[in-house]
Amino acid sequence: MANFAIMGFGIVGSGVAEVLRMNGESIARKLGEPLNLKYILDVRDLSATPYAKQAVKDFSVLENDPELDVVVESIGGAKVALEFTRRALLAGKHVVTSNKELVATHGKELLAIAKEKNVNYLFEASVGGGIPVLRPLFQCLAGNQIQEIVGILNGTTNYILTRMVKGGVTFAEALKEAQSKGYAEANPAADVEGLDAGRKICILSDLAWGREVRPEDISIQGISHLDLKDVDIASKAGYRVKLLGRALRLEDGRQAAYVAPHLVPEDCPIAPVDDVFNAIMIRGNAVGDVMFYGRGAGDLPTASAVMGDVLDALAHRAKRRDLGWSESAPLIRQEQDLPLFWYLRSESAPEGGEKLAEGAYITGPLSVKDARELAEKVNAAALLPVLR
Amino acid sequence: MANFAIMGFGIVGSGVAEVLRMNGESIARKLGEPLNLKYILDVRDLSATPYAKQAVKDFSVLENDPELDVVVESIGGAKVALEFTRRALLAGKHVVTSNKELVATHGKELLAIAKEKNVNYLFEASVGGGIPVLRPLFQCLAGNQIQEIVGILNGTTNYILTRMVKGGVTFAEALKEAQSKGYAEANPAADVEGLDAGRKICILSDLAWGREVRPEDISIQGISHLDLKDVDIASKAGYRVKLLGRALRLEDGRQAAYVAPHLVPEDCPIAPVDDVFNAIMIRGNAVGDVMFYGRGAGDLPTASAVMGDVLDALAHRAKRRDLGWSESAPLIRQEQDLPLFWYLRSESAPEGGEKLAEGAYITGPLSVKDARELAEKVNAAALLPVLR
Repeated sequence: MANFAIMGFGIVGSGVAEVLRMNGESIARKLGEPLNLKYILDVRDLSATPYAKQAVKDFSVLENDPELDVVVESIGGAKVALEFTRRALLAGKHVVTSNKELVATHGKELLAIAKEKNVNYLFEASVGGGIPVLRPLFQCLAGNQIQEIVGILNGTTNYILTRMVKGGVTFAEALKEAQSKGYAEANPAADVEGLDAGRKICILSDLAWGREVRPEDISIQGISHLDLKDVDIASKAGYRVKLLGRALRLEDGRQAAYVAPHLVPEDCPIAPVDDVFNAIMIRGNAVGDVMFYGRGAGDLPTASAVMGDVLDALAHRAKRRDLGWSESAPLIRQEQDLPLFWYLRSESAPEGGEKLAEGAYITGPLSVKDARELAEKVNAAALLPVLR
Repeated sequence: MANFAIMGFGIVGSGVAEVLRMNGESIARKLGEPLNLKYILDVRDLSATPYAKQAVKDFSVLENDPELDVVVESIGGAKVALEFTRRALLAGKHVVTSNKELVATHGKELLAIAKEKNVNYLFEASVGGGIPVLRPLFQCLAGNQIQEIVGILNGTTNYILTRMVKGGVTFAEALKEAQSKGYAEANPAADVEGLDAGRKICILSDLAWGREVRPEDISIQGISHLDLKDVDIASKAGYRVKLLGRALRLEDGRQAAYVAPHLVPEDCPIAPVDDVFNAIMIRGNAVGDVMFYGRGAGDLPTASAVMGDVLDALAHRAKRRDLGWSESAPLIRQEQDLPLFWYLRSESAPEGGEKLAEGAYITGPLSVKDARELAEKVNAAALLPVLR
């Protein structure tokens, strides 16, 4: 029998318990032994739930149980979660998480502890919810040099953009709808300002190139200032507006990563991805473009990814996977010299601009700095990158 | 240093050598040691190629080299490839292949030998070319009960169908174009009659449910009899015609698998997948629908998947992955009682049919047997399943 614990019994944590309840038999068959949920660590009172027997309030119970193999961290944030993850790894437990904030900000340190203690720190659920993407990137595409990763990484903003495009409603109205459907939180800043997507593109970049990129070092632009006018012009000209996280590696070895709303051509496979769905395209120098698509959030989809990692950690109890990124990446800021194409809305045509519609142009390649200068010169009302 | 060999230096085999040449440095960094191509086994004379030093003609050189860890089988077919795979596994070598015919027809036996000898037999490249799909299915989605797999599994037929839909050309004309572009072989039967897709859906089914399904036991219908009329009617009614491999598990534990051209609703994520691209959707009871998309064939994409498996086999030299399917599946034939929806082209309306266009109807759910009886009764000119 293999024992695991869940720390934090919120949406993801209770989803993991539910997946075990639903699929315990097939999980045991694949694992070759039963999987036992031994502890649930939560400050809440679980005595009236079916999990009264597993409930504990003291982390040291988990830390000191030599029969506990794997700990699922679904606490969230980077405070208590950081402390308990550190201590669990130091106690020789494998740790599995869906906590993108913690992985993006402390992944390097936690992977170093895991390496030292010869245990696994796995986080497939931190990007794309239930969509398998980190393991395929790291393992199946290991024969490639990864050139680019670009994706719709946040379901809340994709729902809002879908409503703006298809329903013709403003950002503020679409946000209200998303909140009433439970897709957006009361304080939606981390989603709509792009920070959530920023954390995820950093994790993808870390794994693709083995060097740390920190969310605070990349340019992150959300959708809260997006004008319905530009969404309309883009739609009529054969583009969809999508909030994309994007990471590239240039031929000279420098990297770039950023988050911004983009114009995406309709024939690009990520253009038709609507509502709360996520899609991530990865370009390798052998495989070409591959895309991964599915629900990027939700209790059971996220729990599916967590459970996959729990089973993988148990299958490799004796051998740690090396997922580490040890150095910092030689990053170029988008602001400096990454050449992109740009959508400009302006009454006077920019030099070299190709007319997209009345008062709207596409121009490039230009660095962000040059594009901003150009936008100022022609007094542009909007400036958005275009995916090519 | 880790040593591997390539058996069969055709399109895939030489692609694997090329990927090592392109990416040897990053591969060594990920592996933690250099990867050395020690032998190339082929009947052809390679003395004028850059691989003269590695060329061997006698399989027993590979078999008897204790320093050889992994053998790539890219011979194709199920004769020589079967013998050499058996002998390589029995000699304690890990074997990696892209050979879908061999995996679909002899996978059970070869996995049993691999298990006995504690080595890996890996075949990610056998389905979807470079698209990561088997490992995500088996590993990342291990916490799910898989309910359905449906996909565009053959690039040649998808190219032909794309030309029929978008170019309005007949099957025969589109096939000629595909042949002139090198997408279809001179003898295109295995592709256009659906056998290639049939082998792949069997492999997916084997891995999803751990029970063997053999290509000769499932219903396989290709696209050679497809009428341009039905493609047109479907397009105008919001459907795309796609050759799909499909595998399902019913609630009573019985399984079904089949290959047939389907009407696919335009808003289904696999509908816009055109040309030689493949896309595979997997439905799990926790994750919902996830989709994997990319180039399903070609030298470098396929070699990308082979190289991913080679690196995985080397990372797990000491520990075998259990991918086995040991029993036969309790299969229901599509002909018996799998209920599907159907497109019928007929001058008289079938009972309960919903009108799609003049002289075209959708009806169901009906088993194939009942649908065929109905088609005969109304003297239908076409009968195709509809994906719902």
